[in-house]
Amino acid sequence: MTLVNRREQFIEWGDCDPAGIVYYPRYFVYFDNATVALFAAAGLKKDEMVKEFDMVGYPMVDTRAKFSIPSRWGETIVIESRIAGWKRSSFDVEHRVLKGDALAIEAWETRVWVGRHPDDPDRIKSQPIPEEIKARFA
Amino acid sequence: MTLVNRREQFIEWGDCDPAGIVYYPRYFVYFDNATVALFAAAGLKKDEMVKEFDMVGYPMVDTRAKFSIPSRWGETIVIESRIAGWKRSSFDVEHRVLKGDALAIEAWETRVWVGRHPDDPDRIKSQPIPEEIKARFA
Amino acid sequence: MTLVNRREQFIEWGDCDPAGIVYYPRYFVYFDNATVALFAAAGLKKDEMVKEFDMVGYPMVDTRAKFSIPSRWGETIVIESRIAGWKRSSFDVEHRVLKGDALAIEAWETRVWVGRHPDDPDRIKSQPIPEEIKARFA
Amino acid sequence: MTLVNRREQFIEWGDCDPAGIVYYPRYFVYFDNATVALFAAAGLKKDEMVKEFDMVGYPMVDTRAKFSIPSRWGETIVIESRIAGWKRSSFDVEHRVLKGDALAIEAWETRVWVGRHPDDPDRIKSQPIPEEIKARFA
Repeated sequence: MTLVNRREQFIEWGDCDPAGIVYYPRYFVYFDNATVALFAAAGLKKDEMVKEFDMVGYPMVDTRAKFSIPSRWGETIVIESRIAGWKRSSFDVEHRVLKGDALAIEAWETRVWVGRHPDDPDRIKSQPIPEEIKARFA
Repeated sequence: MTLVNRREQFIEWGDCDPAGIVYYPRYFVYFDNATVALFAAAGLKKDEMVKEFDMVGYPMVDTRAKFSIPSRWGETIVIESRIAGWKRSSFDVEHRVLKGDALAIEAWETRVWVGRHPDDPDRIKSQPIPEEIKARFA
Repeated sequence: MTLVNRREQFIEWGDCDPAGIVYYPRYFVYFDNATVALFAAAGLKKDEMVKEFDMVGYPMVDTRAKFSIPSRWGETIVIESRIAGWKRSSFDVEHRVLKGDALAIEAWETRVWVGRHPDDPDRIKSQPIPEEIKARFA
Repeated sequence: MTLVNRREQFIEWGDCDPAGIVYYPRYFVYFDNATVALFAAAGLKKDEMVKEFDMVGYPMVDTRAKFSIPSRWGETIVIESRIAGWKRSSFDVEHRVLKGDALAIEAWETRVWVGRHPDDPDRIKSQPIPEEIKARFA
């Protein structure tokens, strides 16, 4: 069993476009925040991870979202997030957006685990994901 | 031959995150703007289309982006956009982000052409894309 | 005594700029959301107000913010919001951002209450604020 | 005579809210970008300044905007920006937003010139603005 984090997202006026529905790039902001929250739910706050594990972040390498049902300002959606798989230095995340019982959006992310480049601290370089990190989601 | 629109995008300080690189949801803002610009390059300004063709917009139904090379604030990237295919009431767009000669990002969009629902002006409904629209990109 | 609404705001990675601190336009997003939340705390959800009171919104006419202490991603700030005064068709809001006991930011807003223009539904026009609205904050 | 930088700003669909007008926090993004562009017009690209002058940035300490005329997506506004005054380690910027001949918005900024703190590179500290910088705007 993998950890699933579930969070409510209130849709703000400023998240929506002139059609009155969420401006779709905002969903990727929700998802990025949801991935941060998923790690936090596993006891891994991002600012602490950066210090403890000498990592810089987990930049996105591939992401996709399929939008089935639009949402309007003033509504509240639920975002369910989980790790879908670990590789040596990358991992997959899945997000499901629910409106009541209906599946409104499905999204997938592949992110890479990076630290500072040993030869140049201004550059980043992929690194093996610590086993201790992976174990927290089991 | 299909129309390819090419636009320069200066990367603003506020487009970037604490790692100093573009916060990836901002790329989807760039791409949404690039699709608007692609239509404008075909002589189809979005605000005029809404009036002339009784459409409401072309909301996103499926999008994916693959990120190969990060970009930093102060840099300028080039976004090349083209229609990849037309269906009855939806269409595909491709965006390629170039840094010099290097392909930094590839992105795909499927959007649906919508107008007001005949039974309820507050709702939207997919509609056939006018042939006149498609012809402008040939 | 006027109603004071107090809300915690977690500072997301994507709210911050390459200096690692909140990109200041994001504070205005926080404040706009805080004004929505202040009305909601008074029992006035924005989407319901729009329907019940035939209003369109309360666009900003004048706003100012003084920034004393920066905040970084991963931190949580508190935003205290209250109505500072009512006029016939406009009102003032004050926001105070607290980090622990320290006052990090002070902000002021003047907003105007608008409905649809009687001669043209595509235009907006200022309207007297209903007494029922004002009474909710007392 | 002080340098005045004038730039056109196309208003994107995603800059606007459900009322169809610019979501006001987006104007502060326009203004931040306009200040970067003002310095660039003086030959001072921000990324180069950071390297040459050992500065970190010019964070906002006080800003105000007065909104007189709203703007809608698909419109183009003009932003005129100039330095309104220099102090030892801070400076004032003024932005005027024009729609045709009409003054739509006036905005003011006070920013502080900061570098790394000599005792702690993770902190920032105000610094005297180099005379060479000021001279570029004369």
